[in-house]
Amino acid sequence: MNFASDNTGPVHPNVLRALIEANDGYALPYGRDNLSEQVSQKVRDVFEAPNASVFLVSVGTAANSLILATLSNPWETIFCHRYAHIHQDECNAPEFYSGGSKLTVVDGPNAKMTTENLRLAILAEETRGVHGPQRGPVSLTQATERGTIYDLSEIKAISAIAKEFGLQIHMDGARFANAMQTLGCTAAEMTWKAGIDAVTFGGTKNGLMAVEAVIFFDSKHAKEFELRRKRGAHLFSKHRFLAAQMQAYLKNGLWVEMALKANHACAQLAHGMKKIPNVQLDFEPRANMIFAHWTRAAHQRLHAAGALYEVRAGDHTNGPLDEFLPARVVTDWSASAESVEQFLNILQG
Amino acid sequence: MNFASDNTGPVHPNVLRALIEANDGYALPYGRDNLSEQVSQKVRDVFEAPNASVFLVSVGTAANSLILATLSNPWETIFCHRYAHIHQDECNAPEFYSGGSKLTVVDGPNAKMTTENLRLAILAEETRGVHGPQRGPVSLTQATERGTIYDLSEIKAISAIAKEFGLQIHMDGARFANAMQTLGCTAAEMTWKAGIDAVTFGGTKNGLMAVEAVIFFDSKHAKEFELRRKRGAHLFSKHRFLAAQMQAYLKNGLWVEMALKANHACAQLAHGMKKIPNVQLDFEPRANMIFAHWTRAAHQRLHAAGALYEVRAGDHTNGPLDEFLPARVVTDWSASAESVEQFLNILQG
Amino acid sequence: MNFASDNTGPVHPNVLRALIEANDGYALPYGRDNLSEQVSQKVRDVFEAPNASVFLVSVGTAANSLILATLSNPWETIFCHRYAHIHQDECNAPEFYSGGSKLTVVDGPNAKMTTENLRLAILAEETRGVHGPQRGPVSLTQATERGTIYDLSEIKAISAIAKEFGLQIHMDGARFANAMQTLGCTAAEMTWKAGIDAVTFGGTKNGLMAVEAVIFFDSKHAKEFELRRKRGAHLFSKHRFLAAQMQAYLKNGLWVEMALKANHACAQLAHGMKKIPNVQLDFEPRANMIFAHWTRAAHQRLHAAGALYEVRAGDHTNGPLDEFLPARVVTDWSASAESVEQFLNILQG
Amino acid sequence: MNFASDNTGPVHPNVLRALIEANDGYALPYGRDNLSEQVSQKVRDVFEAPNASVFLVSVGTAANSLILATLSNPWETIFCHRYAHIHQDECNAPEFYSGGSKLTVVDGPNAKMTTENLRLAILAEETRGVHGPQRGPVSLTQATERGTIYDLSEIKAISAIAKEFGLQIHMDGARFANAMQTLGCTAAEMTWKAGIDAVTFGGTKNGLMAVEAVIFFDSKHAKEFELRRKRGAHLFSKHRFLAAQMQAYLKNGLWVEMALKANHACAQLAHGMKKIPNVQLDFEPRANMIFAHWTRAAHQRLHAAGALYEVRAGDHTNGPLDEFLPARVVTDWSASAESVEQFLNILQG
Repeated sequence: MNFASDNTGPVHPNVLRALIEANDGYALPYGRDNLSEQVSQKVRDVFEAPNASVFLVSVGTAANSLILATLSNPWETIFCHRYAHIHQDECNAPEFYSGGSKLTVVDGPNAKMTTENLRLAILAEETRGVHGPQRGPVSLTQATERGTIYDLSEIKAISAIAKEFGLQIHMDGARFANAMQTLGCTAAEMTWKAGIDAVTFGGTKNGLMAVEAVIFFDSKHAKEFELRRKRGAHLFSKHRFLAAQMQAYLKNGLWVEMALKANHACAQLAHGMKKIPNVQLDFEPRANMIFAHWTRAAHQRLHAAGALYEVRAGDHTNGPLDEFLPARVVTDWSASAESVEQFLNILQG
Repeated sequence: MNFASDNTGPVHPNVLRALIEANDGYALPYGRDNLSEQVSQKVRDVFEAPNASVFLVSVGTAANSLILATLSNPWETIFCHRYAHIHQDECNAPEFYSGGSKLTVVDGPNAKMTTENLRLAILAEETRGVHGPQRGPVSLTQATERGTIYDLSEIKAISAIAKEFGLQIHMDGARFANAMQTLGCTAAEMTWKAGIDAVTFGGTKNGLMAVEAVIFFDSKHAKEFELRRKRGAHLFSKHRFLAAQMQAYLKNGLWVEMALKANHACAQLAHGMKKIPNVQLDFEPRANMIFAHWTRAAHQRLHAAGALYEVRAGDHTNGPLDEFLPARVVTDWSASAESVEQFLNILQG
Repeated sequence: MNFASDNTGPVHPNVLRALIEANDGYALPYGRDNLSEQVSQKVRDVFEAPNASVFLVSVGTAANSLILATLSNPWETIFCHRYAHIHQDECNAPEFYSGGSKLTVVDGPNAKMTTENLRLAILAEETRGVHGPQRGPVSLTQATERGTIYDLSEIKAISAIAKEFGLQIHMDGARFANAMQTLGCTAAEMTWKAGIDAVTFGGTKNGLMAVEAVIFFDSKHAKEFELRRKRGAHLFSKHRFLAAQMQAYLKNGLWVEMALKANHACAQLAHGMKKIPNVQLDFEPRANMIFAHWTRAAHQRLHAAGALYEVRAGDHTNGPLDEFLPARVVTDWSASAESVEQFLNILQG
Repeated sequence: MNFASDNTGPVHPNVLRALIEANDGYALPYGRDNLSEQVSQKVRDVFEAPNASVFLVSVGTAANSLILATLSNPWETIFCHRYAHIHQDECNAPEFYSGGSKLTVVDGPNAKMTTENLRLAILAEETRGVHGPQRGPVSLTQATERGTIYDLSEIKAISAIAKEFGLQIHMDGARFANAMQTLGCTAAEMTWKAGIDAVTFGGTKNGLMAVEAVIFFDSKHAKEFELRRKRGAHLFSKHRFLAAQMQAYLKNGLWVEMALKANHACAQLAHGMKKIPNVQLDFEPRANMIFAHWTRAAHQRLHAAGALYEVRAGDHTNGPLDEFLPARVVTDWSASAESVEQFLNILQG
């Protein structure tokens, strides 16, 4: 019963096999090997974007920060939701990589920026000449950090506002596959067809060891990104081992299959929770994460049984048993039906 | 009738005289002249802080940014009000000088952080280990950017929270004298006696040409600040001309006298406005700035008469005459009773 | 006998008069006043560059660093002489403003880069793909930090190499007037007609209080520079007082007159020194600085008489009297014939 | 015959096996898993440094840059050899991570700083107060980028100078094992016992997939490094897979064994080359790299036979056959005796 995060589970065996295969003999370094080029092409195919520029890095924060640094100037502000990973969970990496850009927080329910709030936030800048920060790119997270999802129409609406002001738009897709699987759309539909300019196409949270693809649909950003990646120390010498992971990821739809499993386990959990009195879901889960509240007594039962998940605040060990405490439950591709059922049984009490 | 800003009026004649006097003969550069040392001592005297480190720079944004960079680490977040100059009006200078610190916005009525909101904002950080930004210094603006003032008890309460978490606290005193004059307290009472660690002691908005003093009450920051000032290109070679301005400022209480004049003109304006129907004050003015709303018709009368002040949004030239539009009216030491009366007369219609 | 630096002497009285005149009444801030616009136009006229973008800042290091940041990317290296102010005397301000560019040192006699060394330095970069720093702008100092001067043909030759590689070229003209006066050329001939893209047009070392003009001959850099200046906290609110200084500087050729005086005093000193046995000039002085060696005994005589100048290394107070110690002697517009003669007399012994 | 680099060969099979073993079940992320802690302890054991702080990153440039940023201030200069990887091959990453530190080049034969040159370079700084860059850490590369090695006495002498000026000293040990194996000393002897403060302990160039350990012998740097690593996006979520590689590396001396193989192949190549007329070694190879010159004809023979190695400048395909062109030949753990012999045979012609 490990639902602590989607980075605590094992890597898919196919990925390990791909590493072993890629280890055969010599290969040019820094992405100049054949496999790396093939994988870039494969990503372009998946996104139906023959002119896209594709890069691999090993950490999602690197992908986000390097993209945003490429799309922004240091005197600009980046618009994102209050719960965005780039704002809350990257220890100022976007500020660091961009040379001191600001992040402007845009609110909205369900961890999603509303178009109205985004418009107001953009309008509020560039009203003071050179004195205030200038308008920079918009970054949205799909799936969000609360397990919700922007529908295609919502992405398009957000993009339309960005475009109206001439701003670039980035998608932090650390959980790209989970969102796409729920929406039942293509990668292209969820990105460039909806107005997205650059994507962090996550793999690490979905069964890879440590690979995220960076995709720019306009290749004019390629040279700058390459230099920023090198300067940021994110260019791997033995690049074939990043490529091998992404190769396995995209082969025979493994990435979709893993997201489907994670989402399915999550849906099962949510389905069960809804039937349990004294469990409150904070959001309607649409990907692989559940944010909920339940009683301290239930927390104690779960922990006694060895269940792992985040208690978001407070301490389940001490206090009134009927107090509600928040929990975050995350599923990944390896979550079993048994662990889901066991978790629900204990939660029910 | 120029109420556009406190940087549009003339410099006080004493200041120009001081420049002329300082120009006599040769002087060592970079603050090693006698006058510069005397002035530092004078600032220490005024603040009753014999061990303080004092530096002069020519721009308020430089003072603020260099202080905050000295007090923070780039992986931290600086806590300030949404209306703080450092957040809204410095084009990311604090982010630049600090190497990419974040600014966390703390709300509160009357352009002042409440202790409750500040505590919540601080508590919200450092809950995610190294993943989120770390807690950095607190910065408050006195007088605020909306013409209000923190009372001494409020400063102490804010400082107490900062100290509770081991955080340093900075006062952006671009309008320091205006606030102090209203509170009827000493410079020491408004700063280190209330828990402030570092001050931007503004002169430019109060009758100087271009000088702000930077004061650290703990001299351990001195060496780092000196290096940051030089690296930021804010160390004047002909430093005596900064010193001369500050000398004139502090001589015979000129600084307090000028603030008194500015505040008095502002109070007269506010007093008159309150008696005019269809004029609404947004805040109770306590320094030298009024934020108010009045009708488009009144705006048009004022502009036709040549009055200068900011119409904060919209356009007074076009639209229903009875629509209320916001205005910012700022007084400085040179504001005359006549211009105040004339302004009120026209506003009244 | 103050020859310590060209920043220790008084400001020219015309400059102070201009400040007093500029202080009359109200003026829009941040360079939107009439005087500021007139002065920009005047600079354009002086440089015969009707499309140039002109900005004023108060510190030479700011001018240099902001220009270089505008012309470079942080993954590039800036080519300059080992003795360049930007390399030796700005405490990493160019690195700070550029976001971490490197400076590549180019050697050459007489404190001037040779075209051959510059070419080799440029060729040595971009040989390692994204791994090494990329080629950035070239910066030359005119007059140099050793009192020598690039002839027009030398500037053209340096520029030609920069252009050959598509690199921008900056002139640090902290002592622009001194060099121009010696060359007997126009400002245009020494800059854009010789291939220069951007200039730090110094005033502070030549009789102003604290003003340097920044000139871009291609106005495409204007917007970025404005934002960088603001973000660097170098945008003056009471900008008219920067403009007033530059106005006085350019009026009736005051700037050339002051440089002429400084150069003349320097030439007199050099002329006298050459006739004194045991005085060795390190460089042939062509502007307003002499680098020379003379005996400890001579140093002691001069210091006993109150002469001020830099002893570049060692200590004149202690050691064999016939040991040669280096000196830097700088003249400014206010240097008197008497002080020159007195200095030479004492030096001669 | 692949001698292109030590990052083109395969990863050692033990390393892949370790990855597979580490993939079993769930593990806490971000280094909080058991394996990560065990591996840190193992590194401490290897270095006989029970109080050292140990961190893993995936790229050598990240290790170097993060260490140097931790040891320096942005107004300082870092002293290193002209051929240092941090100066020539990291696209300004040290400048980026440090917030704009300068790198001061120190020359010396055999790609090693001499103590005399280092002392002169240090002495040349901090002679101009706050105007010049301040003295920062010293960084030496062991083995050097030219395949030479600092003897223990040389490391101690370099360290002694750094200590004399109160400067910290970093060792870039991308090829740590190769150097240590040649010196026949312990890891402790080559580092803290010789005065080193922080080490990049390389694994990637010596048979790992992508892991370098960062070691600070004084744990006071630990917290800052952790935050810098996170902010730099170099903290792996699935950290166990970095730990697994380092575990395999240190188990049963695999790391020494691989370095021995690489060095042995290199020594065989060098031994053979010395017997071939018209082959000139540029340096005496002491690790796993040879820098040499041979004729264009020999280059053409080798390339025709499929040998891979760097031709450092020029083009072997075109020009006089007897012209000498430089080559870099690198061996890794997987280099076979056959490929060495074949290479020498073809080179001999």
